[in-house]
Amino acid sequence: MKIYDTPGFPNPARIRIVLAEKGLEQRFEFVPVDLIAAEHKQAAFLAKNPSGVVPVLELDDGTHIAECVAITEYLDNLDGAPTLTGSTPREKALVHMMQKRADDWMIDGIGIYFHYATPGLGATLQAYKSPEWAGRKEWGERQLEKFTNGMRYFDGVLARTPYIAGDSFSMADITVYCALLHAAFINIGVTDDYPALKAWQAKVAERPSVKNRSGQ
Amino acid sequence: MKIYDTPGFPNPARIRIVLAEKGLEQRFEFVPVDLIAAEHKQAAFLAKNPSGVVPVLELDDGTHIAECVAITEYLDNLDGAPTLTGSTPREKALVHMMQKRADDWMIDGIGIYFHYATPGLGATLQAYKSPEWAGRKEWGERQLEKFTNGMRYFDGVLARTPYIAGDSFSMADITVYCALLHAAFINIGVTDDYPALKAWQAKVAERPSVKNRSGQ
Ligand SMILES: N[C@@H](CCC(=O)N[C@@H](CS)C(=O)NCC(=O)O)C(=O)O
Ligand SMILES: N[C@@H](CCC(=O)N[C@@H](CS)C(=O)NCC(=O)O)C(=O)O
Repeated sequence: MKIYDTPGFPNPARIRIVLAEKGLEQRFEFVPVDLIAAEHKQAAFLAKNPSGVVPVLELDDGTHIAECVAITEYLDNLDGAPTLTGSTPREKALVHMMQKRADDWMIDGIGIYFHYATPGLGATLQAYKSPEWAGRKEWGERQLEKFTNGMRYFDGVLARTPYIAGDSFSMADITVYCALLHAAFINIGVTDDYPALKAWQAKVAERPSVKNRSGQ
Repeated sequence: MKIYDTPGFPNPARIRIVLAEKGLEQRFEFVPVDLIAAEHKQAAFLAKNPSGVVPVLELDDGTHIAECVAITEYLDNLDGAPTLTGSTPREKALVHMMQKRADDWMIDGIGIYFHYATPGLGATLQAYKSPEWAGRKEWGERQLEKFTNGMRYFDGVLARTPYIAGDSFSMADITVYCALLHAAFINIGVTDDYPALKAWQAKVAERPSVKNRSGQ
């Protein structure tokens, strides 16, 4: 099986961590995609994922699976023993609820801020991603506000439970952790205003799947 | 168990259909939320769902589950025989990929258009939801473009497979169908430009879970 991604980027990192958690890294071939040259906005890539984003999983029968949530559901269920997406109905629900908040507020929040309110990955991609319009910068900045509110929310959650969706590490932890990786890359760190989030971040950073993942 | 929702609205309809598909309607008490008065933006509701949107599921232990994807995972897995969220890893992946596209492009697309580029649900909610800013209307209109591209995409998918994620009816079909309900409400119909989508819409409308669901 193949994974099209861009090493070092936050959404690709989600899947690298999942692969390491599940001990599956050896079963995949990685195919690099050049985001700065906007390779992912050209027809060949859009045929694999019409959203024009990485990562994308290619199964041996040629099926393409985009979206980290979907790729994670696939990988986590391959061995019949899901650990990252919940096993009871209640766990599945909590993981997916927190995962959606982590997507909307955190990883998409910081991503949209980056592409709309800053020069992002440069002019070539910018032309596809966020051409000039009246509210562009303000829209981007609102996403940073959403991200900051998200940090406050997850800090509150983590003051009560060891991991984001409860007692065990899940897909939602991976998403929030990778959103913080993106933020750190643009010098937005987790300050002492978010003590529970900061302690959780340090704990997650020590997991072998996070520390030793491929493609850093 | 309780469901906080607003009868007749598109996201609540997703869960009403899920309940009917799974034969679970009798086990839930429905609590109405007044969206026009912005009841869902006040502290009592935000404590249940900090996103301030309906529907929200309340379990008997007091846990609140927001987000239709999460609520559907819960309800679909209660009997140990999921039919709407996939059963093999490949099915789960395809359902979640299509579900994410249906959320981002279709039901959120038409919803954001409605709240940003039109008077939406009126002045009280507008003040919380989308106060005036330079790019407000343009942003809303881009979402209609996204929705229209989404109709074209799903029309293409449905020209090849009977349902959105393959051979069987799933959560992704429910999301797209309910997005089209919202669009119809604001006079955006599925025209003959989308023949496969139109035929699928007529077929889904005839499902007992859709036709006879509660809260219409
Ligand atoms: N919702 C997507 C998000 C993927 C995403 O935004 N990936 C980024 C890389 S971290 C990307 O491709 N960005 C380039 C672009 O948006 O043009 C997922 O879960 O896979
Ligand atoms: N992603 C949410 C979307 C829920 C949503 O947008 N619900 C609408 C009703 S159809 C709502 O509460 N709108 C009022 C608002 O946004 O203020 C879900 O899956 O439950």
